[in-house]
Amino acid sequence: MFEINSPLNNSWIPVAVDSDFPIQNIPFGVFKTQRSEPRCCTRIGDTIIDLAALAENGYFDDIEMDSSVFYSSTLNDFMSCGKSVTSKVREQIALLFNSQNPEFPNQQKSEILYPADEVLMLMPITVGDYTDFYSSIEHATNVGKMFRDPENALLPNWKHLPVGYHGRSSSIVVSGTDIHRPKGQILPAGVENPIFSPSRLMDFELEMAFITNRSTELGDSIPVENAEEYIFGFTLFNDLSARDIQKWEYVPLGPFLGKNFGSVISPWIITLEALEPFRVEGPVQVPEVLPYLKTTGKRNFDINLEVYLQPEDSSPSLICQSNHKYLYWNIAQQLAHQTINGCNINSGDMYASGTISGPTENSFGSMLELSWGGKKDIHLADGQTRKFIQDNDTIIMKAYAQNGSVRIGFGDVITKILPAK
Amino acid sequence: MFEINSPLNNSWIPVAVDSDFPIQNIPFGVFKTQRSEPRCCTRIGDTIIDLAALAENGYFDDIEMDSSVFYSSTLNDFMSCGKSVTSKVREQIALLFNSQNPEFPNQQKSEILYPADEVLMLMPITVGDYTDFYSSIEHATNVGKMFRDPENALLPNWKHLPVGYHGRSSSIVVSGTDIHRPKGQILPAGVENPIFSPSRLMDFELEMAFITNRSTELGDSIPVENAEEYIFGFTLFNDLSARDIQKWEYVPLGPFLGKNFGSVISPWIITLEALEPFRVEGPVQVPEVLPYLKTTGKRNFDINLEVYLQPEDSSPSLICQSNHKYLYWNIAQQLAHQTINGCNINSGDMYASGTISGPTENSFGSMLELSWGGKKDIHLADGQTRKFIQDNDTIIMKAYAQNGSVRIGFGDVITKILPAK
Repeated sequence: MFEINSPLNNSWIPVAVDSDFPIQNIPFGVFKTQRSEPRCCTRIGDTIIDLAALAENGYFDDIEMDSSVFYSSTLNDFMSCGKSVTSKVREQIALLFNSQNPEFPNQQKSEILYPADEVLMLMPITVGDYTDFYSSIEHATNVGKMFRDPENALLPNWKHLPVGYHGRSSSIVVSGTDIHRPKGQILPAGVENPIFSPSRLMDFELEMAFITNRSTELGDSIPVENAEEYIFGFTLFNDLSARDIQKWEYVPLGPFLGKNFGSVISPWIITLEALEPFRVEGPVQVPEVLPYLKTTGKRNFDINLEVYLQPEDSSPSLICQSNHKYLYWNIAQQLAHQTINGCNINSGDMYASGTISGPTENSFGSMLELSWGGKKDIHLADGQTRKFIQDNDTIIMKAYAQNGSVRIGFGDVITKILPAK
Repeated sequence: MFEINSPLNNSWIPVAVDSDFPIQNIPFGVFKTQRSEPRCCTRIGDTIIDLAALAENGYFDDIEMDSSVFYSSTLNDFMSCGKSVTSKVREQIALLFNSQNPEFPNQQKSEILYPADEVLMLMPITVGDYTDFYSSIEHATNVGKMFRDPENALLPNWKHLPVGYHGRSSSIVVSGTDIHRPKGQILPAGVENPIFSPSRLMDFELEMAFITNRSTELGDSIPVENAEEYIFGFTLFNDLSARDIQKWEYVPLGPFLGKNFGSVISPWIITLEALEPFRVEGPVQVPEVLPYLKTTGKRNFDINLEVYLQPEDSSPSLICQSNHKYLYWNIAQQLAHQTINGCNINSGDMYASGTISGPTENSFGSMLELSWGGKKDIHLADGQTRKFIQDNDTIIMKAYAQNGSVRIGFGDVITKILPAK
């Protein structure tokens, strides 16, 4: 049987050894060129593959689907076809570009294939609702130690449910979008009344987000054992945070303007199918969770996560190395929890993990933790130091699962922080 | 000059004295019939007016607009035309149906007019993002007294900024939608670990919400003095709340499953233009707010608010009488605050007020407050009592501004709470 995920699988499209996009990946995104309207695409190596053009050339004729979904500025309609269709599309792409199959005629190549550096990658989905969870025990513990009681860092509910809150969908943008430092109310130490100021404590949060592929009815719940059927794939997610704005505003109703000035995702959605070989067991959950949250088997994913900070006119420094597998709460638990009360979901909803910190100091997924609340310097390769993000710094996030020679990557999430407007 | 809002204005469509919909109102909504697809509409008295059919008959020909916006299952595109268009549409409707103008020929009447009891009113907008503010000082004080310190009921940030949080858009539904009692984790008193249970403390929150009519760019802020230009109108809003689920989950990131199982709005959006005669000054704000939040003039609205609880097989009892004018933070301040950090908005975003409680015990806008945390009985006309909502109770909310003989109403928000699924 043909095995897409096998390391033996190869494409007739050239793929560099360290590419995020071997033929085992087959990510989904949306692109445009100077000549064309937005269309859905995938990528092998440095080649963008126009899915609408593939359909026009009859390559999806054997799949029962409405291929007009590819002529779209978002993946929502494609995802809504369900896994019975989207998995077949992935398999067909893997076959078409397999090195044992013939290359396309030149005319077709010119219609279907584009060099990656000649296209513009767009925001791949229209985000319906966006939830941000808080599912890393290391992150929650670090924050609890810094701001509450070091001896009782986790709040009583934390190990019983995947704590989460609703975030802003409108300001989720694609990698490459520059973000202005937000202004707002902050309460500097020792001052009685808040002042109006650009944020002085700009931070990133290293997260991943999963995306749902269909709707449910209001009142229905998704059983935890079926939850992954509703999940199309993952994106890499930078939840930019203004710590000083957040600190002053967030009691009692949670984060608001400290978060909603911009969140940045990778241009590619990586399917659960591509990540199958990288499944690992999550941490043991003690105390035992309630039955509606109980999962078995490998529900976490071994995905390496990296954050680089690049000062203006300098080179990037690696400042964080973490991994998706550290998450305490898995995606099936998150989606089951989100819907246990009857909350309905839609295709294109985004569910972020919360900051993914690991157990070691170099694996903390935010500058708040890396600088331990601004008490320690973060050292960069060029001799500079940071506690939080400075104007014109660029944050670069990378995510990849690696299995011998096969690297399933997400594409970088690149965000430059511009001065306040 | 023709004055829509004048009490002397009358329609050739019959309007009962206590109707929510005199010709001064001209609300906007979306309806369908057994024969027709969803279309935008307005209402005078008990008559639904099909705006697409009005356009087909040439009645909007003098307005420069794309009248295809009326052939839609939502008002979003119509609202996005901006006030220069939507105000003209309102004025034209007021002229067409004015009693000094001739009635339509019968053929046109049959194409354009429908008895209200023969149509189905639909969810009038596609909600992009939804924010819930917390802008009633009486409500915030009551909650603070019950759960925190009676002597310092308000948190330090409350008088400096309109506290708010992001809510769930997918579960906002139109009046008449029944909602199942949510299930989830609760921590009953004296118990160490949470249990899984239907909520035992089901509540409503009496709110109003404003709706935006256009988009801004990420990074831009809306100045407080221009904010009302971005606001199309108001809807009446029931923010259903499961107090026990909320209490266990909400620290530290805010309300989540205690709120997102269903929020219910009126089928009609009432324009700011219709509410002009009902402007009043809001409470004096001390301490002085920061410059980006400073407003002058009449920014609140004198809108009477009522909540009725109707047990199954019984009649409704009035249990709350409040008023929009009590709100401490006004809508211009809310929208300026939402965007001060560069957060972008879209047409169809919804911004709810938070529970609107007044100064007297009968004006508290939630059962949490009316029963003072479950300590007092709420007495119903049929001799029953309630502390929170029971299964098969129906909550009915009404909102109307009254000016002598003219009543600008919102249409009821009717929500029956069904047993947990």
